[in-house]
Amino acid sequence: MPHSPEDKKRILTRVRRIRGQTEALERALEKGDACIAILQQIAAVRGAANGLMAEMMEIHLKDELVAGETTEDQRAARMAEVAHLIRSYLK
Amino acid sequence: MPHSPEDKKRILTRVRRIRGQTEALERALEKGDACIAILQQIAAVRGAANGLMAEMMEIHLKDELVAGETTEDQRAARMAEVAHLIRSYLK
Amino acid sequence: MPHSPEDKKRILTRVRRIRGQTEALERALEKGDACIAILQQIAAVRGAANGLMAEMMEIHLKDELVAGETTEDQRAARMAEVAHLIRSYLK
Amino acid sequence: MPHSPEDKKRILTRVRRIRGQTEALERALEKGDACIAILQQIAAVRGAANGLMAEMMEIHLKDELVAGETTEDQRAARMAEVAHLIRSYLK
Repeated sequence: MPHSPEDKKRILTRVRRIRGQTEALERALEKGDACIAILQQIAAVRGAANGLMAEMMEIHLKDELVAGETTEDQRAARMAEVAHLIRSYLK
Repeated sequence: MPHSPEDKKRILTRVRRIRGQTEALERALEKGDACIAILQQIAAVRGAANGLMAEMMEIHLKDELVAGETTEDQRAARMAEVAHLIRSYLK
Repeated sequence: MPHSPEDKKRILTRVRRIRGQTEALERALEKGDACIAILQQIAAVRGAANGLMAEMMEIHLKDELVAGETTEDQRAARMAEVAHLIRSYLK
Repeated sequence: MPHSPEDKKRILTRVRRIRGQTEALERALEKGDACIAILQQIAAVRGAANGLMAEMMEIHLKDELVAGETTEDQRAARMAEVAHLIRSYLK
């Protein structure tokens, strides 16, 4: 998880916002809201999931590749772990 | 909302799955799971949000442009409503 | 291809712009431009490809589902063809 | 640009492939190919642009954050430059 308490809190806030959005979506579907309104809410969930992914990726790169005293070999090993995630989430 | 009860149920199931994923993410963050595991869970939320958007868009096009007896003018008016959503969600 | 000459022209203009952007990228790589500048040009190509996809999808839906006198069955058959494209391009 | 000649060559190969795809798209539009075929070619351009972005991002992180002897401060300054790109390309 994020190393700094501030980063962890920011990520948790984003995750809770998405949970709140999905609860609002359930209510909107149950009371029969118009499709266009439903689609707009879904687009907002998607945008929030993208924002969460970008922020967590940034925090991870900072924690693993930037912070502390590390050797090139250590950073290369950590980069290999994150590289396939970058590829998969750009599809 | 989706016109057929089956479509509505499929969309609700997808929305609830995303809610469940965000709840699991909160627990993972609270117990301090590794960042790579957190990133993979976030990537799954993102994939699920994309799948939900695609299915709802498809249902909406079916309900508005395909189903029933409609005139070209009616369909053109409905298309105009959905066109900006297509543009915005391809960003 | 797009049914109206205006739509076809708009799509061709977008395709040619992307070709021009890739030619500029080649030149930038060959003369050794900074990575950040290269990444910004690549992000622009990606944005242009998304814009092209959205516009062509919209034109296709208009040509196939909106235009002319069609029966529900005809529109359902055309929708089936486009549905898997919507799913695949939202990944 | 990428620091290693092999990386630069891989990026150039990807850029040239996209240029080739846009040239094929122009020909397909000019000879009036079916819309579904055009949409599939556009989806391929989009996928290739995403793959190019992911590979260039990975090379950039490797060159700037992994390679060589660097201080935490140097890496933090380089990370700040790339952070807004990560955010913008996840939209």
